[in-house]
Amino acid sequence: MAGRKAVVLLSGGLDSATTLALAHDRGFELYAMSFRYGQTHEVELDCARAQAHSFGVREHIVLEVDLGKIGGSRLVRDSRRPAVTDSPIPATYVPARNTLFLSFALGWAEVLEADTIFIGVNAVDYSGYPDCRPEFIKAFENMARLATRAGSEGRAGVSVAAPLIDMSKGEIVKLALSLKVDPGRTHSCYFPDTDGRPCGACESCALRRRGFEEAGLRDPAQMPRRPRRLETS
Amino acid sequence: MAGRKAVVLLSGGLDSATTLALAHDRGFELYAMSFRYGQTHEVELDCARAQAHSFGVREHIVLEVDLGKIGGSRLVRDSRRPAVTDSPIPATYVPARNTLFLSFALGWAEVLEADTIFIGVNAVDYSGYPDCRPEFIKAFENMARLATRAGSEGRAGVSVAAPLIDMSKGEIVKLALSLKVDPGRTHSCYFPDTDGRPCGACESCALRRRGFEEAGLRDPAQMPRRPRRLETS
Repeated sequence: MAGRKAVVLLSGGLDSATTLALAHDRGFELYAMSFRYGQTHEVELDCARAQAHSFGVREHIVLEVDLGKIGGSRLVRDSRRPAVTDSPIPATYVPARNTLFLSFALGWAEVLEADTIFIGVNAVDYSGYPDCRPEFIKAFENMARLATRAGSEGRAGVSVAAPLIDMSKGEIVKLALSLKVDPGRTHSCYFPDTDGRPCGACESCALRRRGFEEAGLRDPAQMPRRPRRLETS
Repeated sequence: MAGRKAVVLLSGGLDSATTLALAHDRGFELYAMSFRYGQTHEVELDCARAQAHSFGVREHIVLEVDLGKIGGSRLVRDSRRPAVTDSPIPATYVPARNTLFLSFALGWAEVLEADTIFIGVNAVDYSGYPDCRPEFIKAFENMARLATRAGSEGRAGVSVAAPLIDMSKGEIVKLALSLKVDPGRTHSCYFPDTDGRPCGACESCALRRRGFEEAGLRDPAQMPRRPRRLETS
């Protein structure tokens, strides 16, 4: 295992932090990649940096990705865009986002000669997102083998590891804590306020809350970070 | 055919301009996508804009892509990086570039409900590039079907059309001219001077020259754009 490198997609959320911790636990030399795109609040990247630091990441890069020009999601740029209601796919789905992020990771993996890309996708709670399913990950891996030097030279291509793909949110919370992830330094909310505090109401906040409840644990990130006037007076 | 939309990857080179002209000839409503990344000289984007205008493109977007942070190619950022000589793959290969560009096109195609992505890759002259081969294009198409709403809802996914993939450069030159592409408004050089003029010496310039020779035609873009002192005195 010594010397094996992995590129880890790190959003700053609980799932990707747990994935990073798992890759660390498996002995990989870690390279983390984050993205600043339409929806990204700086607090997410602060969390990503904190997690990268905690797990001794060798290099952490943040790429700017201009998804706003493409549009198509409630999460990118125009959050007032009405939700698409005639589809089982959530309005927060960002077209081709995981494909794009994995493609950037693939390029970096090739340059670093990393043999694995880790991504924290989950097919249980994100079953409506086409690019969170195991068959998508497999198809990406196959494409990646053909896209790169390694594959075209008959060597093994890059593997895509999605270790959380079949877990419930409660299982992920327990795994995170067993791997010493600090959940107070992760961010899950789709619509944080200007100070980066979670709204507590979006589907991502709700999912996270259910995960902590299922695990029987308290979520430090959901606590108000400043005392509220009414509570302290 | 009426109303069918296509996203066309448009670099400003002869191949992508010819691909655009073909998509136009086939009656698609055209959406062109270009990228500004480490290697991109503004002259390439000027050429892309000129071609987009010529063929009545409905919308042309230019995305910034930060490939310099990933590195790994003589074409991106550090052009002094020594060529990798123990590989049949050219040092000008940019890791995962076509995967990335196709992924952006996929996201836009999904938003636009376009059914086809056109890309001007060529497996004859670029046989050393893993991501210019037909099997890569097929694998991307399969992955794309699984990555998107359409595929996951049982509808047909996005097709990836690579109409030049089996053509020689001479055939491409002839096709370009038959479709009224102005080659004087295309740019192929990897290492243009600061005014955007082709070097005449890189592999891309050499390939283009052979293409025009094979087609028995003169390349307007290779003519010096300013009279040289020694020739005019």
